[in-house]
Amino acid sequence: MNRSDMARYKLILAYDGTHFRGFQRQKTGRTVQGELEKALRKLGWKGTSILSAGRTDTGVHASGQVATVDLDWIHGCEALHRALNDQLPDDLAVVAVESVSDGFHPRFDAVERSYRYRMYISQHRDPLRERYAWRVWPPVNVPAMEKAAELVRGSHDFSAFGTSPVSGGTTLRTVSLAKWTQIGDELVFEVTANAFLYHMVRRLVFTMVLVGQNRLSLEDFRAGVQDAQPLPPGLAPPQGLVLLGVHYAEEKQEAGS
Amino acid sequence: MNRSDMARYKLILAYDGTHFRGFQRQKTGRTVQGELEKALRKLGWKGTSILSAGRTDTGVHASGQVATVDLDWIHGCEALHRALNDQLPDDLAVVAVESVSDGFHPRFDAVERSYRYRMYISQHRDPLRERYAWRVWPPVNVPAMEKAAELVRGSHDFSAFGTSPVSGGTTLRTVSLAKWTQIGDELVFEVTANAFLYHMVRRLVFTMVLVGQNRLSLEDFRAGVQDAQPLPPGLAPPQGLVLLGVHYAEEKQEAGS
Repeated sequence: MNRSDMARYKLILAYDGTHFRGFQRQKTGRTVQGELEKALRKLGWKGTSILSAGRTDTGVHASGQVATVDLDWIHGCEALHRALNDQLPDDLAVVAVESVSDGFHPRFDAVERSYRYRMYISQHRDPLRERYAWRVWPPVNVPAMEKAAELVRGSHDFSAFGTSPVSGGTTLRTVSLAKWTQIGDELVFEVTANAFLYHMVRRLVFTMVLVGQNRLSLEDFRAGVQDAQPLPPGLAPPQGLVLLGVHYAEEKQEAGS
Repeated sequence: MNRSDMARYKLILAYDGTHFRGFQRQKTGRTVQGELEKALRKLGWKGTSILSAGRTDTGVHASGQVATVDLDWIHGCEALHRALNDQLPDDLAVVAVESVSDGFHPRFDAVERSYRYRMYISQHRDPLRERYAWRVWPPVNVPAMEKAAELVRGSHDFSAFGTSPVSGGTTLRTVSLAKWTQIGDELVFEVTANAFLYHMVRRLVFTMVLVGQNRLSLEDFRAGVQDAQPLPPGLAPPQGLVLLGVHYAEEKQEAGS
């Protein structure tokens, strides 16, 4: 083996989460990490684990998940991209491959993450949308939900909306974008933060829908965000959620010379 | 049985065609008609066959397919709607139920049908879109495809694009709408006609993509539309296609007094 061919590659991944038990490899169950590592082994990878920007739950989708792998590969990024997509199952694909510096870490070097949550307001289910959206009924008051989203922006203790991925870790997070967009009978929530607590986006969406349906007051929602007061339990279902992307400071991911 | 409760109901249907062997009931294989009739039987339907506006092929989706059923039902349209959706599988749903006159026929009384075909232009597959769109590569020349769509509008012998559903039937059709819309890396073709030949939309899309990729001249495409000259074989794949709706003259579908 020529040691100089070993390099770290950053993989941007898209997947339909419907038939995955989440991102992270587990002893049993089909996972994104498991399928990706299987494909990498077919290309000669001998490592024990890839690195990723973070987990996604069972049923959650991604168009911009990030993973890195150290691989001995002489054929360049474009050939690696094609070779991986040839090996991966239909519901998982590599969107882009870049060579990065050996010190680049997809989770620790991430400065922000972006998610999108999609729902449609309808009394009756729509088979063409239910794989990628949450059907909500009765109708919601969109201006009230927009006010709730405004409250979410900024730095808050989000402990009413989830738990830290690290035991005993901080529940303080900084949200730089949180907004609802209405398109016909659909409502889309876009949110960007430095990092997210477990279940945070789905808790936020669920709780904002309670506000929109007049089942939770905006004041109680405000107390949840600003004073970490407990809020009614519940999660929006996973299929409406997509991890859109993970953002890095430019200089952190440049390949070494 | 109280005969006065027997009435004809118009059902607007939406389905994800992925796991159906098309609309029409067959001896073997899961079909939309088969699943709908099974659900109707659970509600007491004793008929032998529903009527529909037309077939869709294996893998083709619908948001506005139309069927009618004669049913002895005393609980009203809204209750029928809910009862049917409770019985139907996840990939098939009733969008609307109306009471119509006994003489209403969903195929013979239809004056126009509308379809939409969705594709995305990408070198690499996207797991979040491939269930509902065709991935096309290399890139296409959109203005050339718009010119082709313009040629499609009007009354033509479309025999280069499909066969009549009736043996020996006419291949003359009148297209009132045919246009491409570009949204980011996606291209959507919308088409409305009085009726369609078998495979006509998928043939049109496939052949226009040949024009867009410079593999078929606009002149040859014109000869196919205007002079029924043969064109290269091939079909766009079914998953990009959705039957959007079937249109009726207002007075034809009113319920009898």
